[in-house]
Amino acid sequence: MVEETVQKETLYRGKVIDLELHDVTLPDGNDAKREIVRHPGAVGIITIDNDGRIILVKQYRKALGKVIYEIPAGKKEPGEDSLTTAKRELEEETGYQAEQWKEVTSFYTSPGFADEIIELYEARDIQESHQLSLDEDEFIEVIAVTLEEAKALLHQQLIHDAKTAYALLYLDIQAQQS
Amino acid sequence: MVEETVQKETLYRGKVIDLELHDVTLPDGNDAKREIVRHPGAVGIITIDNDGRIILVKQYRKALGKVIYEIPAGKKEPGEDSLTTAKRELEEETGYQAEQWKEVTSFYTSPGFADEIIELYEARDIQESHQLSLDEDEFIEVIAVTLEEAKALLHQQLIHDAKTAYALLYLDIQAQQS
Repeated sequence: MVEETVQKETLYRGKVIDLELHDVTLPDGNDAKREIVRHPGAVGIITIDNDGRIILVKQYRKALGKVIYEIPAGKKEPGEDSLTTAKRELEEETGYQAEQWKEVTSFYTSPGFADEIIELYEARDIQESHQLSLDEDEFIEVIAVTLEEAKALLHQQLIHDAKTAYALLYLDIQAQQS
Repeated sequence: MVEETVQKETLYRGKVIDLELHDVTLPDGNDAKREIVRHPGAVGIITIDNDGRIILVKQYRKALGKVIYEIPAGKKEPGEDSLTTAKRELEEETGYQAEQWKEVTSFYTSPGFADEIIELYEARDIQESHQLSLDEDEFIEVIAVTLEEAKALLHQQLIHDAKTAYALLYLDIQAQQS
């Protein structure tokens, strides 16, 4: 089923993504073009505070043209291992450090056109480090909500992205099993 | 928190995606650039056959460089409503029609750089229509697996995308509640 690249062109090199156009040979020998967005990969952190609430960040997303609430997340730096990214991003975006870390899963967000992979972690036993340090173009508010409050945000489409929707189902299953 | 576009440039218009570069004014008055991938939106169909198995499609994904198993899915045509897309894509990719349709949820896949939204449906009471009609550059195999078999595929990272990972948690919750 493999599609072999005959030729590729990098159409754009950006800060967050690159765009490549590949001429490929299909399994039947015919030709096709594939548009591929390259992304360094990201982590998302399902963060539970010491009262059992979920930590969310409220952020304007230009691509969507709206403000949404998401689990803390961020892009990997070149060569950085995922847990290091997770610890760094949690602290930078929320000012929290966590003692307990657990790998949850990983998934590609848009396999039809992008190689972005998100690795999800669960972080518990948190404390404030006061090391909040947002990127210069990041404007974020941090909130803590119960699972029921988070579900209400989902219903209002104020939670509206894949990693956070996944996180809520994951926590729902945990709640049912406990 | 809104970021106002001062100027935008469409860097690429493609078959699946367009790429825009926006110069924006940040909430603090500073400037920034935002790379935005435009996508028409897609549907994913959590399809359960009459033996309770999950219908998956096996497909090579050039962006990932590997074959993965996903729930049936596809892009919306201009002006098409989501349920119509869902029925069309299910039939084109798998040859099945379904009698029972239910909206599950929707989510943005990559809010940091793309406006792609996936609307998820659950389809049951299926029958073969023999109307399989793949796009000329699509090479797909259709399989039916139990939830346990699907979880094994997830463990092997042969299921490895956001919508299908979400679908498995969703079906897991249904199974626990029944």
